[in-house]
Amino acid sequence: MIIVINENTLQSDIDEVAQYLLSNGYQINISNNKDLTISAVVKNVKDSPINMEKFSCIKEIKPILAKYKLVSREFKSEDTIINIKDIKIGGTEVIVISGPCSVESLDHAMEVASATSKSGAKVLRGGAYKPRTSPYSFQGIGAEGLSYLRQAADEYNMLVVTEVLDIRDIELVSQYADILQVGARNMQNFRFLQEIGKQNKPVLLKRGVSATISEFLLAAEYIAIEGNLNIILCERGIRTFETMTRNTLDLSCVPIIKHLSHLPIIVDPSHGTGRIDCIESMSLASIASGADGVMIEVHPCPEQALSDGDQSITPLEFNNIMIKLKEVSNAIGRYI
Amino acid sequence: MIIVINENTLQSDIDEVAQYLLSNGYQINISNNKDLTISAVVKNVKDSPINMEKFSCIKEIKPILAKYKLVSREFKSEDTIINIKDIKIGGTEVIVISGPCSVESLDHAMEVASATSKSGAKVLRGGAYKPRTSPYSFQGIGAEGLSYLRQAADEYNMLVVTEVLDIRDIELVSQYADILQVGARNMQNFRFLQEIGKQNKPVLLKRGVSATISEFLLAAEYIAIEGNLNIILCERGIRTFETMTRNTLDLSCVPIIKHLSHLPIIVDPSHGTGRIDCIESMSLASIASGADGVMIEVHPCPEQALSDGDQSITPLEFNNIMIKLKEVSNAIGRYI
Amino acid sequence: MIIVINENTLQSDIDEVAQYLLSNGYQINISNNKDLTISAVVKNVKDSPINMEKFSCIKEIKPILAKYKLVSREFKSEDTIINIKDIKIGGTEVIVISGPCSVESLDHAMEVASATSKSGAKVLRGGAYKPRTSPYSFQGIGAEGLSYLRQAADEYNMLVVTEVLDIRDIELVSQYADILQVGARNMQNFRFLQEIGKQNKPVLLKRGVSATISEFLLAAEYIAIEGNLNIILCERGIRTFETMTRNTLDLSCVPIIKHLSHLPIIVDPSHGTGRIDCIESMSLASIASGADGVMIEVHPCPEQALSDGDQSITPLEFNNIMIKLKEVSNAIGRYI
Amino acid sequence: MIIVINENTLQSDIDEVAQYLLSNGYQINISNNKDLTISAVVKNVKDSPINMEKFSCIKEIKPILAKYKLVSREFKSEDTIINIKDIKIGGTEVIVISGPCSVESLDHAMEVASATSKSGAKVLRGGAYKPRTSPYSFQGIGAEGLSYLRQAADEYNMLVVTEVLDIRDIELVSQYADILQVGARNMQNFRFLQEIGKQNKPVLLKRGVSATISEFLLAAEYIAIEGNLNIILCERGIRTFETMTRNTLDLSCVPIIKHLSHLPIIVDPSHGTGRIDCIESMSLASIASGADGVMIEVHPCPEQALSDGDQSITPLEFNNIMIKLKEVSNAIGRYI
Repeated sequence: MIIVINENTLQSDIDEVAQYLLSNGYQINISNNKDLTISAVVKNVKDSPINMEKFSCIKEIKPILAKYKLVSREFKSEDTIINIKDIKIGGTEVIVISGPCSVESLDHAMEVASATSKSGAKVLRGGAYKPRTSPYSFQGIGAEGLSYLRQAADEYNMLVVTEVLDIRDIELVSQYADILQVGARNMQNFRFLQEIGKQNKPVLLKRGVSATISEFLLAAEYIAIEGNLNIILCERGIRTFETMTRNTLDLSCVPIIKHLSHLPIIVDPSHGTGRIDCIESMSLASIASGADGVMIEVHPCPEQALSDGDQSITPLEFNNIMIKLKEVSNAIGRYI
Repeated sequence: MIIVINENTLQSDIDEVAQYLLSNGYQINISNNKDLTISAVVKNVKDSPINMEKFSCIKEIKPILAKYKLVSREFKSEDTIINIKDIKIGGTEVIVISGPCSVESLDHAMEVASATSKSGAKVLRGGAYKPRTSPYSFQGIGAEGLSYLRQAADEYNMLVVTEVLDIRDIELVSQYADILQVGARNMQNFRFLQEIGKQNKPVLLKRGVSATISEFLLAAEYIAIEGNLNIILCERGIRTFETMTRNTLDLSCVPIIKHLSHLPIIVDPSHGTGRIDCIESMSLASIASGADGVMIEVHPCPEQALSDGDQSITPLEFNNIMIKLKEVSNAIGRYI
Repeated sequence: MIIVINENTLQSDIDEVAQYLLSNGYQINISNNKDLTISAVVKNVKDSPINMEKFSCIKEIKPILAKYKLVSREFKSEDTIINIKDIKIGGTEVIVISGPCSVESLDHAMEVASATSKSGAKVLRGGAYKPRTSPYSFQGIGAEGLSYLRQAADEYNMLVVTEVLDIRDIELVSQYADILQVGARNMQNFRFLQEIGKQNKPVLLKRGVSATISEFLLAAEYIAIEGNLNIILCERGIRTFETMTRNTLDLSCVPIIKHLSHLPIIVDPSHGTGRIDCIESMSLASIASGADGVMIEVHPCPEQALSDGDQSITPLEFNNIMIKLKEVSNAIGRYI
Repeated sequence: MIIVINENTLQSDIDEVAQYLLSNGYQINISNNKDLTISAVVKNVKDSPINMEKFSCIKEIKPILAKYKLVSREFKSEDTIINIKDIKIGGTEVIVISGPCSVESLDHAMEVASATSKSGAKVLRGGAYKPRTSPYSFQGIGAEGLSYLRQAADEYNMLVVTEVLDIRDIELVSQYADILQVGARNMQNFRFLQEIGKQNKPVLLKRGVSATISEFLLAAEYIAIEGNLNIILCERGIRTFETMTRNTLDLSCVPIIKHLSHLPIIVDPSHGTGRIDCIESMSLASIASGADGVMIEVHPCPEQALSDGDQSITPLEFNNIMIKLKEVSNAIGRYI
């Protein structure tokens, strides 16, 4: 619900309303556009009966119409900016995440981190646990990969984002990562989303390959309603009839999600297209479309990559793209 | 690999080969068509080095070409028939699974079980834990629902199939269910599939809404490679551009899967179409297409259902469909 | 609009209303369920101003709510049965159309007609003009193919259905064919549909590969509004992400179209799946789903076919399918 | 085929080869990268038997591997730049096409042309004949609309692009338009493509909503093989499961088509998304992705538009987008 407060209400009265809602389990957002409003959402209204009539400072109570409440612009009209160790995601700066599909060794992680951070990447990505279509494919090197990522990121002042595949790994991965990635295949693994919502690391939530925008935001809501609103959305391609690309990158979801939600959104052109010859142009297009960042797979030697070599670019190619990304970012009033 | 055995080999020599493979962690299938062959698959070939040269009875060793090994017709040419308390799934009998989307109460479960078993249904379905797109939707009544299903099924000599949503619930659900259902949204939750494969209850694996047939069989392989080959596949509609139906039921996957795999396959026209006016015709079409069964949502009072009332039919409508299903089953040489 | 007539109205008064509508360019249907009603549709209401107030026998005038008017069940509640030379399409009999993808020679047409008519096929299909994705592919033998089809059909008492590709060919093709086929790629070639609607041969309208059911019926409406209501709809697969089949056969459109429209609908499993190993099961499923017929590609020697050999079956295979199709037809109260 | 010519061959010998091919109906392209080569394609090789052995200057003959020959980069490695009245499409300049969905009156056309040309648009679009899903929808004002477009474009030094719907209208439309548009629904109307290829106006070919990139290029080949290589490709969204947008704009087709073909490609974000709130960001993204232009629907009063008002922007909004488009064009080394 959105609670509109009468003009000239005392701050102490506003605080009282806010406190009442919080103590009843509501998550709230106070906003002061035209009217002062308190948006308030609780998981199960029936379990949290409240009586707002006693507050005389309330002018009006309106429902939040979106199916997704906490992540909607109705709940919070200002952009969410997620601040991790002074790197801000969702603000004017465009964030570039880079790294290999899978972490292969410490040297490998160091090499990629060194090169891509020099080019301007702020976040190091890399899979330690890999969700693979076949049980016979390489499944990631596991826990030791987490440590390699952390060491490499620390050496080059980067953040670490890596995927968690299993409820039972959340705690372990949280010890190493700055951002927990929820992969496309887990976007509707609701129990997993709930557990991700209960911990307090920022989350990178990838759109499922056949998820509508509405389902994508509802998945984010599953995380948010448990208390974690530090969610970065990530478009990474949807499944269509076209076979020349691995997926069809749906860039129009960027302006739509910016319209519907206050959460930051980035784009992954590597998984979204699966083609090296599309990475540059789709990265530029992502930024031009208004995305808050891009996530690009970089591997020192793509043809030897243990997974997804076909869509990884070299550090040199990455550097060339970064130069152009900076130009386009500037052209739209942002920067890298 | 497929190991072809020389003609006139002694049974004891064959047993020795089989034993050697089993003791090295291989899953095997012995077949005696034209040639006697032993198919053998292991999860990680590198971890299981074997030396077959010492067996002189071996004529030839060929690879299994399919990406999915254990579930392929190459591994096992005969149809898998899953026998649960003398109900056989995958044989000549066509199996009908029925019940409500969600279990609501003991009376509710009893009423549906009574009516549908009289009409010929052999398995009772019902969700205790429901995967819902929105965190604000009804999520199932949980553990007590499992008990209601069990009591109702026992009263009417039915089997119970119900969905497990969470790795942590597998043990509990196994205490009540005869068949564990893996829902469409978890079809590529690989860690979950692995745990499902490690327990020994038969599994009903639903096709993901955007899963190709190849991915569907690889998901089954994730379960099989852990040791559980009692897998019933279930087509339940894929996501397409058509909006008049909830999903597009892909019946052509039935003959294709029968061609590629030895596993039984059933069809869920209720989720596959989401329309009451399609249930009868799509159930008949499923059986005519060669499916080993159908799964139909039945609710005593669909308009009061706590979930998916739009696609549930009444026990009376179910009975009318069963009469026609029996006719069509007979027409193709099967029976209900 | 649907005009409800007062009870006990004289036939002459009803005729007067009907005559008035017809003379103003309306197409009408008179129905006598509960109430006597006259459904009336005109292409452009503004160009055809009428005044119904003068008819005192009119009880009420209601709009037809469907976007497609003439082809809707609202306009006409009874099934349309198209009678061509005493072969009835849309009635209790299930109609089987068979023949090669492309007509290759007179002998070829004769051989297929002879074999398939003996098995029970009533209509001979075959392309003289072929719409091909590549300009370098075989484009059909053209006009002489029409003559071969006609001769073969006459010899074996079959009807001829063949595709028209070009507005300029309609007249020529009409001289040879009993049914004019509009291919999937022309389903939204609106000018072409209009010309097809202005001639009076029955039409077989194929669903576009990415047409929704609603668009499919609107395409039929384009034909109907020009005066030709003898339209046979044909489901032939829609484009989805699945690559194992050429298209995904959407059988659930059969009951939905039966619900929305009075037109007959048949299914083409050959183009719909593109796989020989799916033809039998999908033909059986089509009939079980309620389709009024199936259209099956048959070629005496599929591996030598000039087009679509991969999905053509032999006359012998066709005969085996026909035996099973008869069984399933009988099981649902129909016959071949 | 690609004919590689020996080094140091006399120009007269090269000319002789070229002449021989042309006189046998081949279309050719002479290129002088590393080697001097003559690419040559003919519609029907069997009908055009040639003997190249007599030319001693030929070093090697290689096939063109792409299914689409004339439109492929193999046939011609340099970008095709289409020059119409000194406006160049496919060069460094980014071309903006704007105008209403349907032309409504002369004043209307003048108003849009005046405003958008001032903002930098070089081409005026507008439908005189409209392909509409329903026969009851507004079908365009027809021939007089062509005249209005021409007058407005002449007044403001713009080119005219407008859709031809019917083979029989090609000549008439050619009298008014500078570029003939082939709509998405006619992309596989092969007879129509052939006639379009036989006339000599440049063509704007829109991608069908369910056409793969390969089918799109083969459709262009149908036009090219008849002699017209002045083809501008246009991405305008493909049909997917997402319902928030009218279509899913597939921007990754831009770099892929640039890779496969020498033809210019533009993007239509208006039809591609169907949402006003996506036009700006998708226009910017299109240019950033490397497209040679964009096509934007502009209407002085969108809410009164006779068709597609939901996706039309006002001249003022258009002007604001143009300012940003110029910035992004400059950032990637192009200009408007």
